[in-house]
Amino acid sequence: MARRSRGLPVPLLDGFDASGRSGDGASLLARLHARLRKAILDGALMPGGALPASRRLAEDAGLSRNTVEAVYDQLEAEGFIERRHGSGSFVSVDLPERELAPAYAPRAGSARPATTGLSKRGELMAQPYGGEGPLAGRAFLPSVPALDLFPRQLWARLLARAARAPGPDHLGAGDRAGFRPLREAIAAYVGSTRAVACQPDQVVVLTSSQQAIDLACRLLTDPGDTVWHEEPGYRAAAAAFVASGAQVVPVPVDGEGIDVAAGIRLAPDARLVYVSPSHQFPTGVAMSLSRRLQLLAWAARTGAFIIEDDYDSEFRYVGRPLAALQGLDEAGRVVYVGTFNKLMFPGLRLAYLVAPPELAERFVAARVLMDGHTSTLPQAALADFIGEGHLGTHLRHMRTVYEERRQALVDAVAGLAGRLTLGPTDGGMHACAYLPAGADDVAIAAAARRLGIELRPLSTSFRGPARPGFIMGFAAARPAEIRGAVDRLARLLEN
Amino acid sequence: MARRSRGLPVPLLDGFDASGRSGDGASLLARLHARLRKAILDGALMPGGALPASRRLAEDAGLSRNTVEAVYDQLEAEGFIERRHGSGSFVSVDLPERELAPAYAPRAGSARPATTGLSKRGELMAQPYGGEGPLAGRAFLPSVPALDLFPRQLWARLLARAARAPGPDHLGAGDRAGFRPLREAIAAYVGSTRAVACQPDQVVVLTSSQQAIDLACRLLTDPGDTVWHEEPGYRAAAAAFVASGAQVVPVPVDGEGIDVAAGIRLAPDARLVYVSPSHQFPTGVAMSLSRRLQLLAWAARTGAFIIEDDYDSEFRYVGRPLAALQGLDEAGRVVYVGTFNKLMFPGLRLAYLVAPPELAERFVAARVLMDGHTSTLPQAALADFIGEGHLGTHLRHMRTVYEERRQALVDAVAGLAGRLTLGPTDGGMHACAYLPAGADDVAIAAAARRLGIELRPLSTSFRGPARPGFIMGFAAARPAEIRGAVDRLARLLEN
Repeated sequence: MARRSRGLPVPLLDGFDASGRSGDGASLLARLHARLRKAILDGALMPGGALPASRRLAEDAGLSRNTVEAVYDQLEAEGFIERRHGSGSFVSVDLPERELAPAYAPRAGSARPATTGLSKRGELMAQPYGGEGPLAGRAFLPSVPALDLFPRQLWARLLARAARAPGPDHLGAGDRAGFRPLREAIAAYVGSTRAVACQPDQVVVLTSSQQAIDLACRLLTDPGDTVWHEEPGYRAAAAAFVASGAQVVPVPVDGEGIDVAAGIRLAPDARLVYVSPSHQFPTGVAMSLSRRLQLLAWAARTGAFIIEDDYDSEFRYVGRPLAALQGLDEAGRVVYVGTFNKLMFPGLRLAYLVAPPELAERFVAARVLMDGHTSTLPQAALADFIGEGHLGTHLRHMRTVYEERRQALVDAVAGLAGRLTLGPTDGGMHACAYLPAGADDVAIAAAARRLGIELRPLSTSFRGPARPGFIMGFAAARPAEIRGAVDRLARLLEN
Repeated sequence: MARRSRGLPVPLLDGFDASGRSGDGASLLARLHARLRKAILDGALMPGGALPASRRLAEDAGLSRNTVEAVYDQLEAEGFIERRHGSGSFVSVDLPERELAPAYAPRAGSARPATTGLSKRGELMAQPYGGEGPLAGRAFLPSVPALDLFPRQLWARLLARAARAPGPDHLGAGDRAGFRPLREAIAAYVGSTRAVACQPDQVVVLTSSQQAIDLACRLLTDPGDTVWHEEPGYRAAAAAFVASGAQVVPVPVDGEGIDVAAGIRLAPDARLVYVSPSHQFPTGVAMSLSRRLQLLAWAARTGAFIIEDDYDSEFRYVGRPLAALQGLDEAGRVVYVGTFNKLMFPGLRLAYLVAPPELAERFVAARVLMDGHTSTLPQAALADFIGEGHLGTHLRHMRTVYEERRQALVDAVAGLAGRLTLGPTDGGMHACAYLPAGADDVAIAAAARRLGIELRPLSTSFRGPARPGFIMGFAAARPAEIRGAVDRLARLLEN
């Protein structure tokens, strides 16, 4: 229990518990320090006023004298009090007391209220675009792999091995462009699997596709510049463009991918284009060769850049994956983006971009300003994971698993007889499902959530007039879960 | 060796090595695919022209027919060729051939040359502010801890334990504001050690102080807004402000920290202030209480925000660490920034900010646009590292070690008799060392590098007229290394 102080203003030690039950010595000291500081700031102890001798305060507070001495030293170091040898301790007289009153009462009617105070850019950035809340179930989470099938024992071993490796390499910052062996592994991987033409020097290791998109937009556009965005498209990318001050122009997607002629008509002076040509998000359409060449030709002519988001092309169930747009680009217009967060697990935070050769160092310099560099240990573990063949093994396994899950979704939705129609399902980890025109996908998704079904309304992927439907991830849920969820959804759609 | 094709244009298979020595089956396939695609794009195979039968090409190329069939299927899927049952394979006629010529020859005189093509903002961002090159030695690296003393076996065990933990929590994205147990541990830690007043909901886990600075600037300022920056100051922060379009106003630092009255005079309408009050970077000065209160009062009146970068206050050799500015702020103007990358190891990439309560969710929403969220496994490992008392143990150990290294630096530099003078050395992991006026610190640092000594020229920390000197980190090097490096530096300064 606190003892009542004899020498201090009455409330100063009120409720002060020195028994140690609520903390150790260090926190006792911190609490006494905070108590005295507050008394000074609140004016309970006035400037110039004497503090009790440390011995007496120690007695009053039930503390050791050493503790009180340490608190007084601390207050002196911070300028709250002055200690004069032989005469005691006093509250500093040069506290800027006149400032105190207005300081803690923000003036009414200031230009930006203290409760928000975000800038205009900040207001644009801080609009939550997600807000899905707690997950209702694994069916039909988009962009989430089969986490229960990830070889976590193996990963634990590789991480631990990297952490134990002698030398400072794996603990230090390392190469700011990324751990060199990983950059080499990525260059070989995208070269052989995606026909991406690149040297390790072009590879910049980042934390996520989102970071690549944000970085490319900041580096390649100025506020007010125009960016083509697929319509419907990946809204997290659009949100990043808006946050950077870009004017986002939705360019329609049809059965051949983005309509390049429409883009040229709508915004001929665009500086940047965002496309997901292998497996358009969300429709699942593959961009035709003709459109690819048309886009590259236009970019080469105008000097615009293209972000190629190749987020899940590893999973292809019909034929081999289409080669990347980047491999067709001979004018250095394409920034290729790939990620391991969807192949392995979202908590990993390892992705990469392949920059045009002459821009790679500029991307690294700009990225350093954003967050320095990528964590080293998981990069070393991933280099081993790839180099020892584990990534290949895991991808082959996941292709088989996801193929089965995809088939479960296709078969189950086929039974819905027109109430829900799937778009292309040749690849990836999700399918786009269309509702009849006029349906309210947001309301149905909310109702589905109450039945334990995760559905992303397709309409939220449009910036203009929307087509209703859902983005249905099939990678995270087992076939039985998928069938069960479609059954429940069927009953919902009947009502 | 490649065999010469009988049916294809002569150069088509020239130099094509099907022996498998240069790759496995998958890469053979990829190389044949690339070869044929290039032939089509280059016009060696004309639109409408017939391709050899797969059987014949297999023979010519020394490949299995299945491989050639797979390549043809792939080319068909990509739109390069059409396969007609019974009549063979043909180069697509609807290739946008007219586009081909201009596509790969960027027009001269375009607005932005293809060789750079960065935006104006991009040019500002991509100015390398570091560029130190390979390290010359551990003395006197700033901001780098004693990596050889980090308990890496323990960290390996905690990481592996987090990776093996059952359930999807540690592999998934988790809470976008940060792993909840870590946010709770951070709130308790900064509350008890730094007198930061915060709830776990105010803590946003990020990858680095740099990310916190970039995020805060983007969220709290608009392009053209004014930001106070300490002069001399942390140039990576200034570079981030410039990259966000801010007008950076250098505000002088004296023996009490940033000169608030000068700031008010120079830029009364600033929206944001960057300060390192506990241990000013680079001078090492602690901001006086009077200045702290003056700054908070001004911010409360004007609605400006303050970034408090508390980057190394854990290390204090004289008295206890000064309490944080944030704990004095009752108007919600301070964004407090702390990092584990300097306490533990730079490759870790775990830092945090403490937002004013009403802004925490906005910070998280804006951060999601930048790079999604922070890697989950190291967050779980760090929560255990703190919760099980290892952080406290490690910090106590490092305080002892750094104290000894600091003393070695102080003693060694004392022998330089005025040629080099240290600023405050009460805390942190570096000291600021001043040269006589007129000395060329950049030239001396370059010469020192050739002697295996890392020195950061102090002049690069100024935006205006500079005072020459060095930023000398003492945490990464052993006392003997420090003494040896100062000896070599002494001889250099004599010349």
